[in-house]
Amino acid sequence: MKQQTSEQLFGQIQDYIEHLSYMREPKGLYEPIEYVLSLGGKRLRPVLMLLAYNLYREDVEQIFPQAAGIETYHNFTLLHDDLMDKADMRRGKPVVHKKWNENTAILSGDAMLILAFQLMLRQCPAEKMQRVMEVFGQVALEVCEGQQWDMEFETRQDVSVGEYIEMIRLKTSVLLAGALQIGAILGGASDEDVRHLYDFGIQAGLAFQLQDDYLDVYGDPAVFGKKIGGDILCNKKTYMLITALNRADESDRKELLRWLGACDFVAEEKIAAVTSIYNRIGMAGICEEEIEKYYSKALEFLNKVSVDASLKENLRTFVCRLMNRKL
Amino acid sequence: MKQQTSEQLFGQIQDYIEHLSYMREPKGLYEPIEYVLSLGGKRLRPVLMLLAYNLYREDVEQIFPQAAGIETYHNFTLLHDDLMDKADMRRGKPVVHKKWNENTAILSGDAMLILAFQLMLRQCPAEKMQRVMEVFGQVALEVCEGQQWDMEFETRQDVSVGEYIEMIRLKTSVLLAGALQIGAILGGASDEDVRHLYDFGIQAGLAFQLQDDYLDVYGDPAVFGKKIGGDILCNKKTYMLITALNRADESDRKELLRWLGACDFVAEEKIAAVTSIYNRIGMAGICEEEIEKYYSKALEFLNKVSVDASLKENLRTFVCRLMNRKL
Repeated sequence: MKQQTSEQLFGQIQDYIEHLSYMREPKGLYEPIEYVLSLGGKRLRPVLMLLAYNLYREDVEQIFPQAAGIETYHNFTLLHDDLMDKADMRRGKPVVHKKWNENTAILSGDAMLILAFQLMLRQCPAEKMQRVMEVFGQVALEVCEGQQWDMEFETRQDVSVGEYIEMIRLKTSVLLAGALQIGAILGGASDEDVRHLYDFGIQAGLAFQLQDDYLDVYGDPAVFGKKIGGDILCNKKTYMLITALNRADESDRKELLRWLGACDFVAEEKIAAVTSIYNRIGMAGICEEEIEKYYSKALEFLNKVSVDASLKENLRTFVCRLMNRKL
Repeated sequence: MKQQTSEQLFGQIQDYIEHLSYMREPKGLYEPIEYVLSLGGKRLRPVLMLLAYNLYREDVEQIFPQAAGIETYHNFTLLHDDLMDKADMRRGKPVVHKKWNENTAILSGDAMLILAFQLMLRQCPAEKMQRVMEVFGQVALEVCEGQQWDMEFETRQDVSVGEYIEMIRLKTSVLLAGALQIGAILGGASDEDVRHLYDFGIQAGLAFQLQDDYLDVYGDPAVFGKKIGGDILCNKKTYMLITALNRADESDRKELLRWLGACDFVAEEKIAAVTSIYNRIGMAGICEEEIEKYYSKALEFLNKVSVDASLKENLRTFVCRLMNRKL
């Protein structure tokens, strides 16, 4: 079977998304949508969907609408999340509620969510539509649930690691897993394979999000792409912070809480102090172990998928690279 | 064929909506949704859908999920519109962004939109799903377009009557028409009947919205249910205001613009002054004629629907009452 690498699939879906024309009236509604979709990104979810489909079928172009649909949904969540988080920039560009205004961010976001459903339905084979739409609806709702937990956690100091993992499962993992699942369903995979690919996505998503938390503290700024310590500065309840609040001794915990409550501080000092507390707990090791645990679980689920190992190579390589692992 | 009156259908769909259980975690996401759906209202769109279906089939309970879906969508638009309009109250109760906060209004609204799609898909016959979802997606998007035009019109003084009619067609009519269309499709109507019922809904929706504009000025406060002159006080670009700006003589137009720009005024004085300008143009007659035009067009489309006249009686009576007409 003719297979394509993730780079090839990226190129094709990127091209497809660029040529989706939303240029109808009123421009005030559709321009922000084109803007958000043109900001780029890794197109992770559509590429995963196409890779899963490509395990079973060659004609990946058949599901470009669904791949674009899941990317449109993802970008809708970024648009509304940025508004709720009062963010200023996304991918180096001003966010919609700054470039336009808050009402535009609300309404164009709503339209994007509807467009995502429309794309998901477009040219979807009749006999698979019910299942595909059930997965998509469920996953879309779970992402909202994840965002709700995330917002509620901001004002709580007693979030457990279990609650945090459940939150990132909903907010990040299920959409990656859903992308793989929909690709597999459309490709005609067995129910078992569909489930394994979903589980692979869940575990890989958790590993990926924990790695993101980890790199915020221990990453190489040149490679990571963001400034180190960003999560620390804004008190983001990451895996690291929650673990530290649970595991630090009395004096470190007090110091940590002091930093969390501080209004006036030198950024470098706060980052250095919190990182020292993390180091005293051995956070790097704890975190690496946790990432490894989810990552190897992910690969186990991928192994269970009943297609020839050589066919799974592109998918494995793609996730491997995302995790900065040796191939 | 056993048919049900709009009152009977209202009772059933009201009961179905009340028993939809959204009580899953996180409560912070789902409680505002239950709140919005429990505020009541006329359930106009689901009743129209059921009445259209009931022209062709008796088993109306088959499409309760779709009827609840269109009502959920409608209530989602109210939730986000109230946020964008910075409204305080809806149906005598505080709106979601006041009772909770703005982020809750955004996110619970998003979840409601997803739930609307899920309901629309629930138990939908496979062979009709593509068509039903195409209509629903299209209509849902057009409602957003209508809201965008409405917001853009707020800062324009040169809106034409044609533009206004197009705006209310999108913001109000297409959802009523779509409800009828989906009911007809699910009932197994011919393509021609589906089209006639859609057109009936469009014209009836325009008549209904224009009547709402009219009653704000010329209604009997005891019957209308809202305070008279509310639209005048907040400079709402209604059919009356646009027509007055276009048709008033030079001195009345200047006075009208002065009232539109006034910041400090006695409410009763502004209402009386603007109403006087309307009266000098003969606005009541102009408006009544326009309502009559759309209303009789609506009835013409209903007449074309190829089922026995006796079967159409419930639908005709329902719209008749909405328009406060003699039966």
